[in-house]
Amino acid sequence: MTNSNTPLGPGAEFDFIRAMIDLWGSVGHGIGDDAAILSVPPGQQLVVSTDATVENVHFRKGWLSSRDIGARATVAALSDLAAMGACANCILVSLIVPDEWRDQLLELASGIKHVAITAGANIVGGNMARGATFSLTLTVIGHANVPVKRTGAAVGDVLCVTGVLGGPQAAVAAYERGEKPPAWAIDRFVAPTARLEEGQWLAHHGARAMIDISDGLASEAEHLAAANGLSVVIESEQLPRFPSVSAKQSLLGGEEYELLVALNESEAQRIAQEFTAHFRLPLTPVGRFSEPNSPSRVELGGGHDHFST
Amino acid sequence: MTNSNTPLGPGAEFDFIRAMIDLWGSVGHGIGDDAAILSVPPGQQLVVSTDATVENVHFRKGWLSSRDIGARATVAALSDLAAMGACANCILVSLIVPDEWRDQLLELASGIKHVAITAGANIVGGNMARGATFSLTLTVIGHANVPVKRTGAAVGDVLCVTGVLGGPQAAVAAYERGEKPPAWAIDRFVAPTARLEEGQWLAHHGARAMIDISDGLASEAEHLAAANGLSVVIESEQLPRFPSVSAKQSLLGGEEYELLVALNESEAQRIAQEFTAHFRLPLTPVGRFSEPNSPSRVELGGGHDHFST
Repeated sequence: MTNSNTPLGPGAEFDFIRAMIDLWGSVGHGIGDDAAILSVPPGQQLVVSTDATVENVHFRKGWLSSRDIGARATVAALSDLAAMGACANCILVSLIVPDEWRDQLLELASGIKHVAITAGANIVGGNMARGATFSLTLTVIGHANVPVKRTGAAVGDVLCVTGVLGGPQAAVAAYERGEKPPAWAIDRFVAPTARLEEGQWLAHHGARAMIDISDGLASEAEHLAAANGLSVVIESEQLPRFPSVSAKQSLLGGEEYELLVALNESEAQRIAQEFTAHFRLPLTPVGRFSEPNSPSRVELGGGHDHFST
Repeated sequence: MTNSNTPLGPGAEFDFIRAMIDLWGSVGHGIGDDAAILSVPPGQQLVVSTDATVENVHFRKGWLSSRDIGARATVAALSDLAAMGACANCILVSLIVPDEWRDQLLELASGIKHVAITAGANIVGGNMARGATFSLTLTVIGHANVPVKRTGAAVGDVLCVTGVLGGPQAAVAAYERGEKPPAWAIDRFVAPTARLEEGQWLAHHGARAMIDISDGLASEAEHLAAANGLSVVIESEQLPRFPSVSAKQSLLGGEEYELLVALNESEAQRIAQEFTAHFRLPLTPVGRFSEPNSPSRVELGGGHDHFST
């Protein structure tokens, strides 16, 4: 049931669904029943997450092509699997579509397809509804031997971050000023990467707790600290960032989809070096977990700011 | 992580999420990681579906309380598991929330909780985003020994429907006329039932193909026929409907969340009787699958209409 013969009854909505399924080809899989049927490899735990992208909240139409919107939303959803150290198996696509969006659905679907192929996931089902505001809610399903949770960090653990920060925020700031963002920023905003392989590698190389950066490094580090009943101190000078990005911007900028991971103090340096060599992507120590009675804070050179700044 | 200690960082959005998780109590389960971790009973197949409810498309605010909106959306999603003959395990809740909806989120969450408890499902995760239009996308996960698909019906099979039709359409029609709908119609519109146990029973008692009625019996029967490369003839006089509901209304009315099932000709009568005795809910033969060269149609007394009417 992966082509134009997909047996749905007549109707314009079903024509759109059929066209999307056509486009997805062999990446679309088993669509056409009320629910998708999956099997889980024995001994593996199932990992599931859902994430929504909303027009005029997460993007504006002039900033991104429909294909980019589909791709980016899929990355955002898959990033939650990456943060668990899971691989990706399946994607469910729920669309709320104003009439003026109808002719862009295939572009959108092609962006979803592109990221699904990269992640090794099938598109197994979904839903399409009319609505005044465009949104795209993606549910992703994967599996892991031993999923990495937010809990598991201990006092003294080193907090490390993948990649280089500041691109998405710089792009949005430029768009909002009515300017074309620089290429490095556009690239990170338009086509971020779900760090799935990186997350799996970290899960097998000592990750004690992990989270992805949706809302900004400072906010996510606080989530990690709170989940472990700890405080966290971030040394902002260590933050890996693009040249024109300030430390504060790299702390607060969201939608990075990089991973924050807690590593044992004595192994962090070695693991970070191995990771960087393996993926040609930096894994940078940026902070440390401490006793819960010390307030979480950011060391900014000589002084410090609390996260609420 | 199922109470106000749910370890998320500070922020108004997280306060709402914490309050919802508090309300869900033990029904909320494992929320707080990037993704939920599930296990599947050995030998069972996983069944997954997603469904969206959108303000001013699926309901208007004056018609339903926030609690009813939450409950009804959850039933709509679970109904897709029922149509596979699956039981329900888990629910993921993705909310897009305009500011004016914020103070109603707990009411909404209590409606979701009520239906989750009835279905025996846990709420394992979700997402909350701001947005101009309220919507609620629910992803449901269950399992089944042998899921019932849309395919599997053969020429001569009898099409049966659970329950009594016409309530939701009658309620919406009354609301749209500015009238209060009659109690029997309100009850079916506000508090429909996901036929989970019924679907599982049918899966174990000869269901060859099954679908739930989201878009109207005629449309769903066409989907079933199309999935099997068959035609279907519906005898509209047989349609189980409330007294003031016409045959045509019971054919076209959506959001019934009743099940349409194909049963072997020689067993259909006995299965329908057993079902009705077991659930105190009618299972009514309403049609028959035939060769694909005969057009699908509805027998209306002496004549017939094609479905497109």
